[in-house]
Amino acid sequence: MTEVTRRVNVAVLGVGRIGRLHAENLAWRVPGAHLVAVADINGAAAEECAARLGGQAAGLRVTSDPGEVVRDAGVDAVVIATATNTHARLIEECARAGKHIFCEKPVDHDLERIDSALAAVEEAGVSLQIGFNRRFDPSFRYLRDRIAAGAIGELHILRITSRDPAPPSLDYVRVSGGIFLDMTIHDFDMARFLTGSEVHSVHAVGVVRVDPQIGAIGDFDTAVVTMEMKSGALVTIDNSRRAVYGYDQRIEAFGSGGMLWADNQTGRRTGMADAAGLHTPRPLDFFLDRYTESFLVEMREFVGAVAAGTAPPLGAADARAPVVMALAATRSARTGDTLRL
Amino acid sequence: MTEVTRRVNVAVLGVGRIGRLHAENLAWRVPGAHLVAVADINGAAAEECAARLGGQAAGLRVTSDPGEVVRDAGVDAVVIATATNTHARLIEECARAGKHIFCEKPVDHDLERIDSALAAVEEAGVSLQIGFNRRFDPSFRYLRDRIAAGAIGELHILRITSRDPAPPSLDYVRVSGGIFLDMTIHDFDMARFLTGSEVHSVHAVGVVRVDPQIGAIGDFDTAVVTMEMKSGALVTIDNSRRAVYGYDQRIEAFGSGGMLWADNQTGRRTGMADAAGLHTPRPLDFFLDRYTESFLVEMREFVGAVAAGTAPPLGAADARAPVVMALAATRSARTGDTLRL
Amino acid sequence: MTEVTRRVNVAVLGVGRIGRLHAENLAWRVPGAHLVAVADINGAAAEECAARLGGQAAGLRVTSDPGEVVRDAGVDAVVIATATNTHARLIEECARAGKHIFCEKPVDHDLERIDSALAAVEEAGVSLQIGFNRRFDPSFRYLRDRIAAGAIGELHILRITSRDPAPPSLDYVRVSGGIFLDMTIHDFDMARFLTGSEVHSVHAVGVVRVDPQIGAIGDFDTAVVTMEMKSGALVTIDNSRRAVYGYDQRIEAFGSGGMLWADNQTGRRTGMADAAGLHTPRPLDFFLDRYTESFLVEMREFVGAVAAGTAPPLGAADARAPVVMALAATRSARTGDTLRL
Amino acid sequence: MTEVTRRVNVAVLGVGRIGRLHAENLAWRVPGAHLVAVADINGAAAEECAARLGGQAAGLRVTSDPGEVVRDAGVDAVVIATATNTHARLIEECARAGKHIFCEKPVDHDLERIDSALAAVEEAGVSLQIGFNRRFDPSFRYLRDRIAAGAIGELHILRITSRDPAPPSLDYVRVSGGIFLDMTIHDFDMARFLTGSEVHSVHAVGVVRVDPQIGAIGDFDTAVVTMEMKSGALVTIDNSRRAVYGYDQRIEAFGSGGMLWADNQTGRRTGMADAAGLHTPRPLDFFLDRYTESFLVEMREFVGAVAAGTAPPLGAADARAPVVMALAATRSARTGDTLRL
Repeated sequence: MTEVTRRVNVAVLGVGRIGRLHAENLAWRVPGAHLVAVADINGAAAEECAARLGGQAAGLRVTSDPGEVVRDAGVDAVVIATATNTHARLIEECARAGKHIFCEKPVDHDLERIDSALAAVEEAGVSLQIGFNRRFDPSFRYLRDRIAAGAIGELHILRITSRDPAPPSLDYVRVSGGIFLDMTIHDFDMARFLTGSEVHSVHAVGVVRVDPQIGAIGDFDTAVVTMEMKSGALVTIDNSRRAVYGYDQRIEAFGSGGMLWADNQTGRRTGMADAAGLHTPRPLDFFLDRYTESFLVEMREFVGAVAAGTAPPLGAADARAPVVMALAATRSARTGDTLRL
Repeated sequence: MTEVTRRVNVAVLGVGRIGRLHAENLAWRVPGAHLVAVADINGAAAEECAARLGGQAAGLRVTSDPGEVVRDAGVDAVVIATATNTHARLIEECARAGKHIFCEKPVDHDLERIDSALAAVEEAGVSLQIGFNRRFDPSFRYLRDRIAAGAIGELHILRITSRDPAPPSLDYVRVSGGIFLDMTIHDFDMARFLTGSEVHSVHAVGVVRVDPQIGAIGDFDTAVVTMEMKSGALVTIDNSRRAVYGYDQRIEAFGSGGMLWADNQTGRRTGMADAAGLHTPRPLDFFLDRYTESFLVEMREFVGAVAAGTAPPLGAADARAPVVMALAATRSARTGDTLRL
Repeated sequence: MTEVTRRVNVAVLGVGRIGRLHAENLAWRVPGAHLVAVADINGAAAEECAARLGGQAAGLRVTSDPGEVVRDAGVDAVVIATATNTHARLIEECARAGKHIFCEKPVDHDLERIDSALAAVEEAGVSLQIGFNRRFDPSFRYLRDRIAAGAIGELHILRITSRDPAPPSLDYVRVSGGIFLDMTIHDFDMARFLTGSEVHSVHAVGVVRVDPQIGAIGDFDTAVVTMEMKSGALVTIDNSRRAVYGYDQRIEAFGSGGMLWADNQTGRRTGMADAAGLHTPRPLDFFLDRYTESFLVEMREFVGAVAAGTAPPLGAADARAPVVMALAATRSARTGDTLRL
Repeated sequence: MTEVTRRVNVAVLGVGRIGRLHAENLAWRVPGAHLVAVADINGAAAEECAARLGGQAAGLRVTSDPGEVVRDAGVDAVVIATATNTHARLIEECARAGKHIFCEKPVDHDLERIDSALAAVEEAGVSLQIGFNRRFDPSFRYLRDRIAAGAIGELHILRITSRDPAPPSLDYVRVSGGIFLDMTIHDFDMARFLTGSEVHSVHAVGVVRVDPQIGAIGDFDTAVVTMEMKSGALVTIDNSRRAVYGYDQRIEAFGSGGMLWADNQTGRRTGMADAAGLHTPRPLDFFLDRYTESFLVEMREFVGAVAAGTAPPLGAADARAPVVMALAATRSARTGDTLRL
């Protein structure tokens, strides 16, 4: 008999920025989770992560060999937060070892590679949750719930503004798969999440405005995407790699019965009035500050689903579809064509 | 038989800033009004005002003798916008001549003088409307209507912030009767208007923070007033003669069932975001810009009431009560006592 | 020698909603203008319009024959506010008669017809100002001025949200030329105005979500347009024929150095807080309320330019380009192609 | 040589709502702290608190005898979160035992009792930090820092709105010392914190509007306080025990050079527009949600000061002065007098 509230032993693979956050959340803030291992091919990073966990790290396995963790029979679930090009392989290894899997997005840049990884997951009968954390942001989730409840009637237009405070390093850009696979992919996920529908057509315009070196690599840094969803909703996304005023993450859903929106988060709720006008703080700058709560909630829901033996809130379809959309957008931006999927 | 929609022949006495505004409104924007005369002891000002009225000034009497207007049998109603120390006398003369009267606030700084003027009005059976224009501001009127309709239940606390963009000239301060009679008097009127009640007790603190010369004259430039109304509502008013960010006119009504507020008006609805934050425009600077519509509506209602033979929206009680409150506040600020009325 | 401040005798042709507004503005609120005639093929409408002008209508010619006005040697300038299908012909007649012309948008739905009208204007050497009034809205003009001054660096993304409170009658839709020529045309003009550039490519998606009868006529009621301007700015426009919360007119300009925006206008600046949250007023519902000031300013600038003998603020290119964009958008919405111009 | 970063062993006395929060913060979120004991005369509450701490509770002493903790030589610092009437005694016992002390506000309702406790602290040479947590709220601290830096010039008027979502139980009201000692005391502390000055005069009006039973006990539930500070700033505070729209905590500082404000916090940054207008979320309802961060930061600063051997951010004067102000306000509300201190 499955006990709904049994403790879940979790290992974290890769303790870069996001992996470390997951490890800390699992150690301190996820009821029912027991962090049993952290692994990073950079052993020093793994050690440093463990040290920061303090008293919670008692009995923690710390290793530079992810395989060691995958083979550990005491591990119920694995959080994969390594470099993207290792995701598919680790998913397959974890699946074969019978581990439930949480994997950062994307699974891969190649659809065939994604499909073989998803097949391994299905064959093994384990759970796979993909790390589209923004679905767990309280504001966006509220929008989804209200839309699904019919608060704005039929959804006609969904506008997503998603602009980063600064571009990543050129080294990162080179391996990122391009702006649509790296950055817009979150917005593609949001489009599916909020419309509750799959994409019908994709049109994208990509240009280089922020940094010519990004263009030299063959990528874009500024983009506008228009999609028609199967539900009939039109979606428009605009992206920039650099908004000097901070991390701009706004969504607006317009329907037959009204409009819902989610505005930017700011750290303080203060203001200043002087002869030049009124002044209020800019949005939070850093995605780990902006999405603190969503990273926590996604992990709670993953561990809760594993403990309960239920399906995770995001499944295999959610891992695959945004990549399909991103690849279509990439092609559209290069050809000017509207792609029907 | 009185015809409800008959045309009202109106004369304006005093064409300073406010008198000129009334003249232009009467000429162009007050249905049913016919501006027949403008008078100012400064004859050139009267001429200039008439010239600005353009085509509407055809047949307009322009004079430097207000008495000429008062004696004119063709004048139905007179708008008194002269210096405060002439108000009571002109009210009496107009009343005796059977003219309906609109008079800028206040009637006088002296209660006995006010009472004798009001007695003349009553004896003559004419209408007197006092120029507390803010009652006709769409936002404040909305607050009054919602409060009266019970939208916030029982009114517990009324907060009025009323700050000028810059102090008047010292010459004006000298004859103004002091901050409570000159500036706070509008807020006293608002307190009565919004609570629908008379004052029970007044406590005031007045200090000099903006300009020591104002203190040298014996006046204050910064003040906080607390009142208990007979309805049980508490009222708190704060005033300053100089808000560097513009003309600050906000009201908040807190009750058992909720809160209503009126925020400042700005000219544009634009904003700017940059690395320093978000920036929006400051409030309108000048009372004639901020209260454009209220000055117009008060004149429309005055003329409408005269045409219909009905009582004006503000009567004799409204002319007298705020002066009583202002005199009490002045005394309280000097003694520290709470005055019960 | 041209006198800069001479009076301009103006006639208004067509006194429907907008023509009447122009007539009233010219009569009362446009310095230097003298309204000398109103004409409407519906003679009763012309009479009614004149009657509403009151004292200003002295000497006004009122007629059901526009030609009478065009032939009147005393008329310096003509405001054309008749049905769209009469614009081109009236422009030509006025031009030949040597009148300066203000014409409501669009000149025509057919480019050749527009070109022949513009040729007549050029040949006659008269001024033609086209009625893209939104350029004179204080908020949008502020955006343009700030962008042109470099306040946000290089403009990367311009977002225009333009949604009507309710669709026009089906009879109107039938002769409107379609949503892109009738409604989006204002946004196309805004794109040119704010970017200071011409369009390079247009992609449009049009769907029917508001009213199937609009679809039955062959038109769309919901649309998203993406454009690349020659300056490199990306423009995204979203339109709906029905926003239940009012007239939604927002613009956002994102650039390398920051973001500027113009928010919706509301009538009051009030709010209410209760157990359900905070509640503030919806946007002004009606375009004549929202754009009151822009209709006035455009007429002042037209009359001012005629009086001074200078070029009007919008010329022939501004009459033609938005129609080209609208026709391209119509074609793109039907084919899915991106059109390069 | 004092080591700046040594670990501080902390015990928590009283694990009601606030004590439990402090215990959790100390266990998980306060670098340098080691939670070594929790005590509550309700032993079951102490056990339950320990159980919630999970892995961090290893080696934790859990007891129903506070004295046991006070006598424990391994304890460096004690957090007193017991009932108010035990604060003074526990402070004295802890001081004599050489423990550094963090004590929830107020020390006592009686000034003599406060003074004897403060004397014991001074004699023992230990630190005492009083729990005016709002000083550590990021928004209020920002206001203080900006004011102190001269951003608004000389501070003229400070407005504090402080309204609870619902009154406490009548049992609590009975022992609370009255609204000024229980609720306004935080605002008195804010007045001192933000003006950087001590009070010169106090005037208070208290009424019963929310619940007649509160009046029957002899307390008020609605109040307005006006103070003149020695710096010359005027302070106005308004309080209510029940704001149906949530926990209303706003501050506005008006000075010669501008205005600063802190607005309410909301959980989401979302909105809804429909035919009735725009709707946004109400403020956070519960003080532990609103002040989550300030409770954490105050504990971090306390532990940091103990570790560093430096003075805590709030000292003995901060424990005493707000009680003096509250007692004066209570007297003023009963007599109508303005009290000069």
